[in-house]
Amino acid sequence: MPPPAKHRDAIVDAAVRLFRQKGYAATGLAEIVEASGAPKGSVYHYFPGGKAAIGAAAVREAGRRVLGTVRGLAESTQSAGELVTAHAELLAAWMAQSGYRDGAPMTTVLLENAPQDGPITAAGQDALRAWSGELAARLERDGVASDRAQRLASLTLSALEGALVQARVEQSGLPLIIAAQELSRLYLASV
Amino acid sequence: MPPPAKHRDAIVDAAVRLFRQKGYAATGLAEIVEASGAPKGSVYHYFPGGKAAIGAAAVREAGRRVLGTVRGLAESTQSAGELVTAHAELLAAWMAQSGYRDGAPMTTVLLENAPQDGPITAAGQDALRAWSGELAARLERDGVASDRAQRLASLTLSALEGALVQARVEQSGLPLIIAAQELSRLYLASV
Repeated sequence: MPPPAKHRDAIVDAAVRLFRQKGYAATGLAEIVEASGAPKGSVYHYFPGGKAAIGAAAVREAGRRVLGTVRGLAESTQSAGELVTAHAELLAAWMAQSGYRDGAPMTTVLLENAPQDGPITAAGQDALRAWSGELAARLERDGVASDRAQRLASLTLSALEGALVQARVEQSGLPLIIAAQELSRLYLASV
Repeated sequence: MPPPAKHRDAIVDAAVRLFRQKGYAATGLAEIVEASGAPKGSVYHYFPGGKAAIGAAAVREAGRRVLGTVRGLAESTQSAGELVTAHAELLAAWMAQSGYRDGAPMTTVLLENAPQDGPITAAGQDALRAWSGELAARLERDGVASDRAQRLASLTLSALEGALVQARVEQSGLPLIIAAQELSRLYLASV
């Protein structure tokens, strides 16, 4: 009898949180299962590939969440500049709330495992490309040419990912806010 | 009789390389000593604090190298835009040479340990602030106002750090080159 599907989600949720807080290698499989509340046996049912398979699933889930956030903000804002500013403010608030311990949703796992782990790398590519595509589409709606919009989207992803690293180190949301403000200026100058 | 000082440097060099390639938690203390060629006993002589102390020393050493690179490039280039472009090209070449496995010099260690480990976090702050200060000084020499120069330097650090993550995931130096080109445009528009 297969365990209920909710356990899969609980395992992935726990992995997303633990990987984000302390990284992939430092998080044990037993710790993930324990934090998830799922019965120990269920982990091999859902993830016969073990921890690496959970790593790929966690990156996909983190990517889905980022995309959901960006899509939500794209609807509630009027321009790419407002979108990136709102996103940076949200990230800064989350970071502050966690005492700057709860940073980049997938960066640590990707830095530890890409490109050597194929499925984790593929999950990262899909997540980054979906996020980038959403931003580029928003920039195009603002009047930025397609090629330029893709370049600005690439820079934006880089800047927000790197600003999350700086925010942890400086224990401040300022690197995120500064990145968004400067990106907004560049967007305006690119129409 | 204390072991020769060269062993300390060899241990730090090995740690910088291994942490950069696979992260902090995934790298064992024994692996660092083995890769360094130092006698096993010497590690506790130089680093009574064990692996965490090596982590802080590795971040400081990585920071020194970044600063050396940026200072060297500041002398051989004519503007902040040329500097960041040359830096990005260098990083992209190093990444390609390593099969995109040898990425960010300190980001993984910082994401895994900041802010919970005090000495590693302090080493990261010093490294990022020194790099940022060098860039801001270059921007000011180009005619950018001091406050703005510091903001652009902060964005630049974020963008290059994040682009290194993207470069690993995409196995391409393009995110680095795009970031530098777009930052150069923003610098020019900020004079």
